[in-house]
Amino acid sequence: MTVAPDRAPVTVTPLTDRETLAQTISKYDLLAVPVVDHGKILGIVTIDDIIDTMIEETTEDAHRFGGMEALDEPYMKMSFLAMIRKRGGWLCALFISEMLTANAMQSYEGELEKAIVLTLFIPLIMSSGGNSGSQATSLVIRALALREIGLGDWWRVALRELPTGLVLGAMLGVVGICRIALWQYMGFYDYGPHWPLIATTVGTALVGIVTFGSLSGSMLPFALKRIGFDPASASAPFVATLVDVTGLVIYFSVALVILRGTLL
Amino acid sequence: MTVAPDRAPVTVTPLTDRETLAQTISKYDLLAVPVVDHGKILGIVTIDDIIDTMIEETTEDAHRFGGMEALDEPYMKMSFLAMIRKRGGWLCALFISEMLTANAMQSYEGELEKAIVLTLFIPLIMSSGGNSGSQATSLVIRALALREIGLGDWWRVALRELPTGLVLGAMLGVVGICRIALWQYMGFYDYGPHWPLIATTVGTALVGIVTFGSLSGSMLPFALKRIGFDPASASAPFVATLVDVTGLVIYFSVALVILRGTLL
Repeated sequence: MTVAPDRAPVTVTPLTDRETLAQTISKYDLLAVPVVDHGKILGIVTIDDIIDTMIEETTEDAHRFGGMEALDEPYMKMSFLAMIRKRGGWLCALFISEMLTANAMQSYEGELEKAIVLTLFIPLIMSSGGNSGSQATSLVIRALALREIGLGDWWRVALRELPTGLVLGAMLGVVGICRIALWQYMGFYDYGPHWPLIATTVGTALVGIVTFGSLSGSMLPFALKRIGFDPASASAPFVATLVDVTGLVIYFSVALVILRGTLL
Repeated sequence: MTVAPDRAPVTVTPLTDRETLAQTISKYDLLAVPVVDHGKILGIVTIDDIIDTMIEETTEDAHRFGGMEALDEPYMKMSFLAMIRKRGGWLCALFISEMLTANAMQSYEGELEKAIVLTLFIPLIMSSGGNSGSQATSLVIRALALREIGLGDWWRVALRELPTGLVLGAMLGVVGICRIALWQYMGFYDYGPHWPLIATTVGTALVGIVTFGSLSGSMLPFALKRIGFDPASASAPFVATLVDVTGLVIYFSVALVILRGTLL
């Protein structure tokens, strides 16, 4: 096996960061990398080790983004109990955090009773926040892993996500308003005499929630990295849970402003 | 560069399946693979090409699992319009599918009016289905990609996910019942005289929804592969959307059975 000819040494710090090693090898088309400590060769990492590692890493990251601990054995070989442990821990943690939605709903119970029509759109609105957050998180996790951006770039990402979220939210808002208007005109459902106000509430809330989802989804990996965690620990369910509670608060706040004096 | 010594030829079909190629190289510790057509060498794929490809694939899969089209440029270099296109398409598609939840809610409006307390737990219950589905999907996508399982193994996976979902759902169900009982006893909130029935409804619905989430989340990649799509097209938001509508139907059906004659 030939090692790539002499070139300036590439320092990979810390040595355990396997993704950086893979990228260095990829960038310079190396076939092996010596591991050096103060000029003394400790060993060699060959390219086929890197490939094994990359496949393993990809699997771990996929499991974690799915909202669970990474499995260290193949799916079919994992014992039932180990499977429950790897999935149950995160599922319970997310469930307990999501309980805050029940508290939020309780505090708006008066509004719910007066305008039950508002409940119809809760799942729709909340899921949109989670979806836009999941998109932003997966983008930022990969951009951080590929060193396209660093920890110091958080504000540049925020400045991109803010207008992106506003535009995406406005798109969904328009679709939502059309849906309500269509159902009302076609007689599929009667949202009452104040239906234009309800449609406005839904549309406005969507702008707020999708913007908040994109922003917080993109900032989460930075925050995790900042406090010493792997940014790839941010999972889609984690982001969704984070956005759900705030999503409810945004929705009801918008409703209180727009519907005060009519429905609320 | 030395090529691994003679061994039985490994046939990779189709040739465009880059993940298989990476796995073959990883398994046999090869450094290069000849591309052969009827015994004639067409070219060679070297291991550093494979690494480049793997990094690219990983990024694409992460973006898709996050619920968007894969970006083909670095995050910060992507134009604003291209970013909106890559994210907006899926976001709108998911939003339109999720509108079914509004229809489902409308059809249960009578129940909602009679038992507004039921609405308090809707976000909590729906998110649990999405979370368990997201876990199952990420597991099955990776297991399929690593050839740990094939298309024909769907029923074996289903037979694993069924008990897993039941146990995970029962765990969350117990936590949910305890939460309601605790709030009732501590006087944080009054769920009314029928609170044990409400708690039972929430617990039972959680078992059903988490089981449904795990099952459908695990079957989705198989279904996509079966109809010719990449199983990795299944995204966390897609699974959540799929599970949300059914989750509502499960919740209200359980409520109708348990609360008939009291609240409903």
